[in-house]
Parts: sequence; C-alpha cells; structure tokens
Amino acid sequence: MNLLENIRIVLVEPLYGGNIGSVCRAMNNNNITDLAIVNPRPTTDWGEARKLSCNAKAQLEARQEFQTLKEAVAGCTVVAGTSARTGFYRDTAYSPKEFAPIGLESAKDHKIALVFGREDKGLFNEELALCTHIIQIPSSELYTSLNLSHAVYLCCYEMFCAAGIFQPAEETAPESSSELRERMFSVWREMMIKTEFTHQQKLEHMMMGLRRIFSRGKLTVPDVKILMGLAKQSIWVAEQWEKEKKCNAQLQNNPESAE
Amino acid sequence: MNLLENIRIVLVEPLYGGNIGSVCRAMNNNNITDLAIVNPRPTTDWGEARKLSCNAKAQLEARQEFQTLKEAVAGCTVVAGTSARTGFYRDTAYSPKEFAPIGLESAKDHKIALVFGREDKGLFNEELALCTHIIQIPSSELYTSLNLSHAVYLCCYEMFCAAGIFQPAEETAPESSSELRERMFSVWREMMIKTEFTHQQKLEHMMMGLRRIFSRGKLTVPDVKILMGLAKQSIWVAEQWEKEKKCNAQLQNNPESAE
Repeated sequence: MNLLENIRIVLVEPLYGGNIGSVCRAMNNNNITDLAIVNPRPTTDWGEARKLSCNAKAQLEARQEFQTLKEAVAGCTVVAGTSARTGFYRDTAYSPKEFAPIGLESAKDHKIALVFGREDKGLFNEELALCTHIIQIPSSELYTSLNLSHAVYLCCYEMFCAAGIFQPAEETAPESSSELRERMFSVWREMMIKTEFTHQQKLEHMMMGLRRIFSRGKLTVPDVKILMGLAKQSIWVAEQWEKEKKCNAQLQNNPESAE
Repeated sequence: MNLLENIRIVLVEPLYGGNIGSVCRAMNNNNITDLAIVNPRPTTDWGEARKLSCNAKAQLEARQEFQTLKEAVAGCTVVAGTSARTGFYRDTAYSPKEFAPIGLESAKDHKIALVFGREDKGLFNEELALCTHIIQIPSSELYTSLNLSHAVYLCCYEMFCAAGIFQPAEETAPESSSELRERMFSVWREMMIKTEFTHQQKLEHMMMGLRRIFSRGKLTVPDVKILMGLAKQSIWVAEQWEKEKKCNAQLQNNPESAE
C-alpha cells in the first residue's frame, strides 16, 4: 500500500493559478495525488495553472473543490496546517522533517491533510484551530515568506523521502579489490621511473602521495583499468624513446650504416 | 562567519524570467545571496523575474552574469551539478541532504557552486564534466522533472538546514510538574463525582482514561491551569445545583416559609 495516496494537499483560497499549477507538478514529483482547493476564487487564471502544471495536467483536473476547510478535511485524522508566524498556539510547531514520520504513521490507515493558506494572508486562526499539528518550514529570519508552491513542494518532498521509496542512483560498477589496485600502483611505479619523472630515492614518497590521491573516494574496476592503461601507454612511449635513442647513438657512431 | 555566503547558485541559460525571480526568493528564504547566470537569453522576461522575486528584488539586481559556466565557477572549489538523469558518470550521485555537509565543509574557507541546467535540457555533458559532485534530488520515478525554482529551493533549504542556523519555534510555557498535574487530577476526580458523571466504583477506571488522554503530549503550566479552572467551575455549578435542590426541598416541606 502506498502511504502517499493517503495524503491530501489542501490549498485554502489560493490567489494565483500559476501557483496551483506548480503545486500539481510538485505533488506528482513526489507521488502525491490528492488535491483539494477550498473556496477557489472566481478570478483564478486556470490557463496559467495548466501551463505551470507541465506534465501534471491530469492532476490539476482531478482536484476536488470544497466550500470550507472544515469540509475539505472532514474525513482526515491528522490535519497539519503550515504557518510562517508564531503565536496563537503556533508555539509547538514541527519542522516538515519532524512531522513526516508522524503523518505517515496515521496515513497507514487514514487520510491525512496538509493545509496551506493564502499567498498573502496564510491561514486564519479559526482555520488553524481545525489543525492537530502546526508545521513551520525552516527559513531565514530575514525573509520567512515562502512561495506557496515552494512550501507545498518541500512538505511533499519530506513526506516522499520519509516514505523511503526513492532509491538513489548508485555506482553500478564493482569496486576494485586491493589486488587490482596494487597491480595498478606497480605499473604507475614503473611509469614514474621509465619516464624519468622521479629518482629512485624519491619514488616511495611519490607513491604515498599517489596512494592518498586515489584513496579519497572509491575506485571501481573500470577506474583502475583506465589508470593502468594510461600508465602502460606512457611506459610504452618511454621504451620507444629509449629505442630511438639507442638507434640514433648507433647511427652517430657508424654514420655509413645509415645508407 | 556565515558559510551560506560562500555558496554561489549558478543558473545555466535559464529560459523563463519567472523562474529566475522565484529562484531569487528561494535563495533569500535560505540566507543565500550569490547568484550567477551563465549566458542569459536575450528573450528573458525580466519584468516577470522582478514580479516573482517578490521581496527579493535586490537579490535579482545583484546577480552576476558570465559567458560560460567555466568562468562562473572558476573561483569555486566544490562545483556540484544537479541532474535528474543517470548515466555519463552520474552514477555516483549525492542527495541534497548528503551533499550539504560536504559542501558546507568546503564553504568554510572557499566559494562553492551549485549548478542548475536549462529547464528543458538540463546540463550538457561538457558542463557536468566541470563538476566535482553530482546532486540528484529524490523524486517520483513517474515524474522526475522538477520545476527549476523548486530544485534550487530544495538545495538551498538543505544547505540552510545543515548550517544549523534555524531555531524552530518551541513551546515557551514551562512544562507542568507532576505535583501540579496531580492537583488537577484530584479536582477532576471531585468534578466527576459531584456532577454525577460516574459512580464511585467506576471512578478509578475513568481516571486512568483521563490520565492517558492528558499524557499523549506535554502539558504546560497554563494548560493545566485551564483544565483545573474548567473542572472547578463545574464543581461550583454542581454545588449551586445541590443548594438549589435543598432549598426547593425545604420550600416544599414548608410552603408558607416562601412568603
């Protein structure tokens, strides 16, 4: 069962169609699909809403509309209201990250609501009174007023992360064994000598530096093969150079053999 | 020193002025102020940018513009590119939450960059090649394409949270001591008897239920005082009722005393 299906996003009297559209996209980015709008304004620019919903137009069309917040959350157990201000019993606020596991726990068996107020005036006190939890989004003291769709996006994102569905992209190539790494280091050692990059006395010091550089992150098998191939090529070039030198030395000793 | 000042947000060839404005607001919501735009398009709607920047217009005006990404990040140590796709060495991606402490560590002494690609095409491979880290924002497999300002907002938010500046609103009223709570419970016990809500036999059972209800969250001193006052008032009403009953009974026994 997908817990995220039980999360209803409730927008109370939103002002801008563009924000409603962006909210739809943000919800779908996080597998959340239940949108309720309380008392939509007759002036709402639905064209702008569709434009900003991008590929979440079906989400926009599937919205439900209610006359009051009370009706929009009637079937919900946990009702979490968002607020930027403190005071009026907003003192015990949860961050979205703190709230997420609490909300998901209830969403196992019940519908829950996340409620967002008007762009200009937020939620009124009588609306906050319907809420069981208050969510306050961490933000700069200098500028606490968030864009509505940013606030919705963040709350959806935290619920999505807490649901533990997302699998981050991981390195698919196998990590190198010590044996393979040591073969690479021995080739690099040979390269440093043959290219005359370092003297025998400084060699071990240089090798420690290289080991440090290549140990800062995981080395995969393909990584090691690239590094080994590169060093082998330099060794080959150094050997060609050696041969040419010998050949030239011979020529200078016996100029007539050139003909 | 404010680490967040060392974070540069870099937008590469953004398409929409509205997104640039929303990005400015999202940055300021999280105390981040260094904005660079790479190769801004001549068609950018700067009016829309100003409108959506809301109270972050100064932020918009303070942006720097560069011809190439290479120039925009030249002075930065860590350069983190955001990508929704995997492949082309994107396999080892960090979530914004994982990246935040790594980025802040470098931001102690150096400028770092968070790089965001075009709305339609993201970052090109040669741009990702300039990045030391790849950030992938967790999102639904069904709809991975985020609004540009949402992506910037989320990364800024995670850096802001990791910087540990924000102090969540906390209950300022002191928590009730056991002694005060027990005084309240004894008043409630008296109320239940005097209002004839329960019989003496069921009283302890009811009290356990009440204790459970009032122990689900912290009770503050003002909370306990409200609950105690409410019960005292009911006791007072029950006592008035008792007096009236006695008075009436007396009247009925001696009707002439009423005159």
